[in-house]
Amino acid sequence: MRITLIGAGRVATHLAMVLQLQHQIVQIFSRDLQRAETLADQVNAQAITELQQLDPQTDLVIIAVSDQAISSVIQAITQYLPDNLIVHTSGSTDLAILEQKHPRAGVLYPLQTFSFERAVNWSETPLFVEAVQAQDLTLLTDLANSLSQRVYQYSSTQRLTLHLAAVFACNFSNYCYDMAKQVVDAEQVDFSLLYPLILETANKATTNNPKDMQTGPAMRGDQNILNMHRQLLVDSNRTDLQDIYRLMSESILKRHH
Amino acid sequence: MRITLIGAGRVATHLAMVLQLQHQIVQIFSRDLQRAETLADQVNAQAITELQQLDPQTDLVIIAVSDQAISSVIQAITQYLPDNLIVHTSGSTDLAILEQKHPRAGVLYPLQTFSFERAVNWSETPLFVEAVQAQDLTLLTDLANSLSQRVYQYSSTQRLTLHLAAVFACNFSNYCYDMAKQVVDAEQVDFSLLYPLILETANKATTNNPKDMQTGPAMRGDQNILNMHRQLLVDSNRTDLQDIYRLMSESILKRHH
Repeated sequence: MRITLIGAGRVATHLAMVLQLQHQIVQIFSRDLQRAETLADQVNAQAITELQQLDPQTDLVIIAVSDQAISSVIQAITQYLPDNLIVHTSGSTDLAILEQKHPRAGVLYPLQTFSFERAVNWSETPLFVEAVQAQDLTLLTDLANSLSQRVYQYSSTQRLTLHLAAVFACNFSNYCYDMAKQVVDAEQVDFSLLYPLILETANKATTNNPKDMQTGPAMRGDQNILNMHRQLLVDSNRTDLQDIYRLMSESILKRHH
Repeated sequence: MRITLIGAGRVATHLAMVLQLQHQIVQIFSRDLQRAETLADQVNAQAITELQQLDPQTDLVIIAVSDQAISSVIQAITQYLPDNLIVHTSGSTDLAILEQKHPRAGVLYPLQTFSFERAVNWSETPLFVEAVQAQDLTLLTDLANSLSQRVYQYSSTQRLTLHLAAVFACNFSNYCYDMAKQVVDAEQVDFSLLYPLILETANKATTNNPKDMQTGPAMRGDQNILNMHRQLLVDSNRTDLQDIYRLMSESILKRHH
């Protein structure tokens, strides 16, 4: 397939890197020429900074930009590529938002967290596809199957549920690590001491129900320790961590008592 | 060494299992005879349910009970074993609490989360030792070195900091997994779809600064998605998750903008 990527951020970069192994990346669009060129050079594509430069000889346009920009980007693209399949990669953006502007719209959503610093294990990454037209759904499913062993045809509603769950499982758990690091950093204690704990907690959640794996003072209803920890956060003037400590502990207590 | 364990819960069980490989477990105490016998049978020890049954021929007594019970347990034991080394395994309990009641007091704190269902990788688990008397600190350090490659002599204050950080890194991240499961369960979406995301998020935190690894709508300041997710939680009547979603998102927003 001939594929065009709109965006040169983390998702666009990781997608381009894996897609170029089996497909041809035609163009990379980014308003930032340097970012477009950096990625385009890596995948033998043309870097473009204006949508009117889009090559109509493409089988698939993948929009990998921030959710807020998706609607205006598809509106701008459809005049240049009225007959091409155009998909977005967002968890929470309904297919209907593309469909209003473009007849051949679809979704290719990878359920993973992407960083420039780390490679992605694509074959294990769940991919969710959706399309307005049946033949496009087949095409997207075939493409997704070429990347991953875990491909699912999900509705926009199911995808939104998954994305909301992912915010808890990924974004919020990462913020818990960030807060833990703030706590140890303030006392010159080495954050790497917590690595085995972080990894075991995550591994447990993939073999057992996380509810059954809950440990800690809130789960035990140990008010002495909870008060001691809260006081420590008050003393060190960490208002945000203090509020989160209180709310999370109260919620865990309720769930387990 | 001849070792006595007070308690037959998760920490006591995992400690007994690893200690018996190189040491002799003399007795297991639990008020619950069946629990004491279950563990004692596994490690060739005697099960006891009364503290006056304690055998004074022991080199080390490990108190692995809930934090609230530590103070009363040491008070009860010291009359039977006035000259033996007695330690607790708690992150947040100060050595002074034992020291007030017993002259040879110490701490052996494993920084890990323990479940009956899962084996513990002891050689990678950081162990923190502390003791009132210098020769006991040496003895505990040697014992800890026989279990783990990562042994540290930490003060009660440093240990408290670690334990507070562990609540964020382990207890709260696990609760994030639990909440994610509640979200997908309500829509009959399979929780295992989130496993690669959970594992990658945890792995990232052990190779990069979690702050730099933050992703998601709150980090991007995407108010549309934040409002959509909040509304979804309001509609499904999940007050707790809604409150936590709001507070965590606001805190992430503040940290990244």
